[in-house]
Amino acid sequence: MSTVMGDGPASMTNPIRVLIWNEYIAERKEPQVAAIYPKGIHMALSDALSPYGFRIRTATLEEPEHGLTVDALDQTDVLIWWGEYAHEQIPDEIVRRIHARVLAGMGLIVLHSGHWSRIFRMLMGTTCSLKYRQDAKREILWVVDPAHPITEGIGQYIDIEHEEAYGEFFDIPAPERLVFISSFQGGEVFRSGCEYHRGLGKIFYFRPGHQGNPTYYHKDVLRVIANAVRYVGSPHGAAPTFGFWEPLVKAPKS
Amino acid sequence: MSTVMGDGPASMTNPIRVLIWNEYIAERKEPQVAAIYPKGIHMALSDALSPYGFRIRTATLEEPEHGLTVDALDQTDVLIWWGEYAHEQIPDEIVRRIHARVLAGMGLIVLHSGHWSRIFRMLMGTTCSLKYRQDAKREILWVVDPAHPITEGIGQYIDIEHEEAYGEFFDIPAPERLVFISSFQGGEVFRSGCEYHRGLGKIFYFRPGHQGNPTYYHKDVLRVIANAVRYVGSPHGAAPTFGFWEPLVKAPKS
Amino acid sequence: MSTVMGDGPASMTNPIRVLIWNEYIAERKEPQVAAIYPKGIHMALSDALSPYGFRIRTATLEEPEHGLTVDALDQTDVLIWWGEYAHEQIPDEIVRRIHARVLAGMGLIVLHSGHWSRIFRMLMGTTCSLKYRQDAKREILWVVDPAHPITEGIGQYIDIEHEEAYGEFFDIPAPERLVFISSFQGGEVFRSGCEYHRGLGKIFYFRPGHQGNPTYYHKDVLRVIANAVRYVGSPHGAAPTFGFWEPLVKAPKS
Amino acid sequence: MSTVMGDGPASMTNPIRVLIWNEYIAERKEPQVAAIYPKGIHMALSDALSPYGFRIRTATLEEPEHGLTVDALDQTDVLIWWGEYAHEQIPDEIVRRIHARVLAGMGLIVLHSGHWSRIFRMLMGTTCSLKYRQDAKREILWVVDPAHPITEGIGQYIDIEHEEAYGEFFDIPAPERLVFISSFQGGEVFRSGCEYHRGLGKIFYFRPGHQGNPTYYHKDVLRVIANAVRYVGSPHGAAPTFGFWEPLVKAPKS
Repeated sequence: MSTVMGDGPASMTNPIRVLIWNEYIAERKEPQVAAIYPKGIHMALSDALSPYGFRIRTATLEEPEHGLTVDALDQTDVLIWWGEYAHEQIPDEIVRRIHARVLAGMGLIVLHSGHWSRIFRMLMGTTCSLKYRQDAKREILWVVDPAHPITEGIGQYIDIEHEEAYGEFFDIPAPERLVFISSFQGGEVFRSGCEYHRGLGKIFYFRPGHQGNPTYYHKDVLRVIANAVRYVGSPHGAAPTFGFWEPLVKAPKS
Repeated sequence: MSTVMGDGPASMTNPIRVLIWNEYIAERKEPQVAAIYPKGIHMALSDALSPYGFRIRTATLEEPEHGLTVDALDQTDVLIWWGEYAHEQIPDEIVRRIHARVLAGMGLIVLHSGHWSRIFRMLMGTTCSLKYRQDAKREILWVVDPAHPITEGIGQYIDIEHEEAYGEFFDIPAPERLVFISSFQGGEVFRSGCEYHRGLGKIFYFRPGHQGNPTYYHKDVLRVIANAVRYVGSPHGAAPTFGFWEPLVKAPKS
Repeated sequence: MSTVMGDGPASMTNPIRVLIWNEYIAERKEPQVAAIYPKGIHMALSDALSPYGFRIRTATLEEPEHGLTVDALDQTDVLIWWGEYAHEQIPDEIVRRIHARVLAGMGLIVLHSGHWSRIFRMLMGTTCSLKYRQDAKREILWVVDPAHPITEGIGQYIDIEHEEAYGEFFDIPAPERLVFISSFQGGEVFRSGCEYHRGLGKIFYFRPGHQGNPTYYHKDVLRVIANAVRYVGSPHGAAPTFGFWEPLVKAPKS
Repeated sequence: MSTVMGDGPASMTNPIRVLIWNEYIAERKEPQVAAIYPKGIHMALSDALSPYGFRIRTATLEEPEHGLTVDALDQTDVLIWWGEYAHEQIPDEIVRRIHARVLAGMGLIVLHSGHWSRIFRMLMGTTCSLKYRQDAKREILWVVDPAHPITEGIGQYIDIEHEEAYGEFFDIPAPERLVFISSFQGGEVFRSGCEYHRGLGKIFYFRPGHQGNPTYYHKDVLRVIANAVRYVGSPHGAAPTFGFWEPLVKAPKS
């Protein structure tokens, strides 16, 4: 009846290894985007998240294997995804590779137009389509699950002066935890913070972040992303086995 | 302020159009299966469901387009799926066709080893893997959501004398409604009745039904399937539009 | 191996017995409300729902036992609740009586300010508090679960010209099915159509219906309520037993 | 556009303040229980959890205000509850006090027979009844949500040699995250690890722990409780405001 304790608080001492993936297209082709994110959205996020103690790397579309090699993913606890124009350029093999890593426990944060990324659609099993309008007006994201750790450090709502509008119906499975609902000036609403478990992995979709607006300098938006890194990067259980299974209990004839 | 009422109870008067799909392999190759289901599992189900007033058709793997033509699916309100050996023989195009029909509102009931069908895996976004053991011992399915209409007419549990055992972890998204949990003689448990919405469609996975056992003559199993036809065949809302959207509200400068 | 079928479609032939409860105060004290609902909100709802084939009765606060006798509840399949000023006048015994009936399978539809009714708070286990503003401006209710039968017969959204505004955080357990999200002109959002199971009973909260607006003449609002009657009035399973339980399986020493 | 970061990883450096509440009756009256837990279940848990770095206190029924004073609760991040015989001895005022603290963000872990505690029933809104049989046989708890941080450090299942059996139907709201399902030797299953959010608070129900078995010396059981302390003690968002609310957006006439 002696007790061998678990690894205790030790798991908190290893920094979470974050890989920020950005297609990095608009920032190099569209001057108004370059003006906002001169080093790319990935670097803006990397700079903003660094005070939180994560071990951060970045990857972009133009790298070999789009920066998503087996090695890179194996060393990633949380993958952050931003993409808009190049969704279809990610080949099957890499999409399946990320998919397998999520099911094996890697956290995934999908930002804004990443809703249409191949990996998000594959994980959701739906089209992930929605309504949109690029009018750079006000978005208010209301917290509807204040018990969720992802809401730590922000108020009752996040107020963004200029953002693209998205509208329902957002064709996703009902979020297992719905954390934010957005209101837009045209009367639209949107499920903007959606949390899921898939296999051993945790997934968070977070809506804001059109490349034409300085959204990734907004302190509340950054705080949510940092919280989400911790959340989807938090521990998981043991890998299950599948297939033929011997009984644990020797059953009587029934 | 005059009121134009909806179509009232009329929607209940159209019989639900059910298509029962069965790969129909084991019943023709394995004598002990043929002895149980001489006309095939699809016909056993068709016979059993006919008293409920559904309009029932069947389809099998060997038919042109595996019996899953555009026309056939367009005239289907609820598709029931049984398969085990031929999952990979269903081509991409047909899997995508069924997928689109589900998102457009067709109900889907996936039985037993259909958990590994391509359509179920595509809709779930996970591997849908599990543990199994073909020992034909006792399965008890406990009702854990007695408010669910799918449980109408059965007791607190369903008792099946001989069934294949499945075990957790079942790699699916957490059921949006978990209706049954099975107990097996080897100490296994299994989430055996799982309900989901995807797009406009409703999905029900129901575990029992190994081809080597006379499970589809068990009155409670049949009652659940009949209830499930009504449930996933019940009405849905309007098809959403996606893409660019004009504001409903003319917004002020914010 | 003979098959005794269930009761088939018979369950659909009994009309659902609806009891519409209204405190019936504002309609008698406030002329502008009386002008909208001269016979009371309960009678407006009764008139509007009658084409659907339900068997409808009404009850109000001033009746003996507030119209909520054991007999009345025993003959009720679906209870619709509207209240605003008199929540605290419903005594413990009657709240517990309704609570027991819901757990035993009676459907419950809670409208608008009924979020603060004692029965809803007791069933939710939370304060059910929210933000509000009686400014009679536009409410748009977006369908976020178009697979749900409650959305049958309406479009992508419901547009109400004049309604009281509610805002998040709405202190309820996360809806098991979230069907509608409202947008208000002040930038608020609200989870306006929330579905729950409790015991054998099904519950639907539906937000619109301030007494100062003619909301219960709006055809889409009425259609949702009619759909909800069918939904929460749909069948349930067997009553469970609790307490000491003999094993179904004679277990070996383990 | 300067960025003020959140409080970063600082929140992890404050130890979680845990209050372990135990009615502490059986351990003093029943010799066979005293033999297992000579200092009481609360002290066994306190000893086992201390290596995890929590700041732990205990409280029992016989203390003034049952050890649940306003001060004690105000200094508690996570309350662990064990009770069996004395549920009805906790007065309304204290139940409401705990309830308010949970909604304000205090985590709550309810163990075993605590399912019938007044605070758990009040939070759930249901009877929380179940089937039981004190036969001290084998319980196997299967992980059905291995992405959940509560499953860190254990295997695919927890195997307990001697435990009281519980059986479904467990009259609770469907768990928002179902983490464990138990199998018992009599053929019963049970939803044994159930997670909920209520207001700002997180709740975890964990089944094992009959006083007559040495369950709280089982390393996996202890690991789950330690993980649960971290989980329900993890951060939450800002306290919402309720009542009248001025519009954030100055709305146009619509």
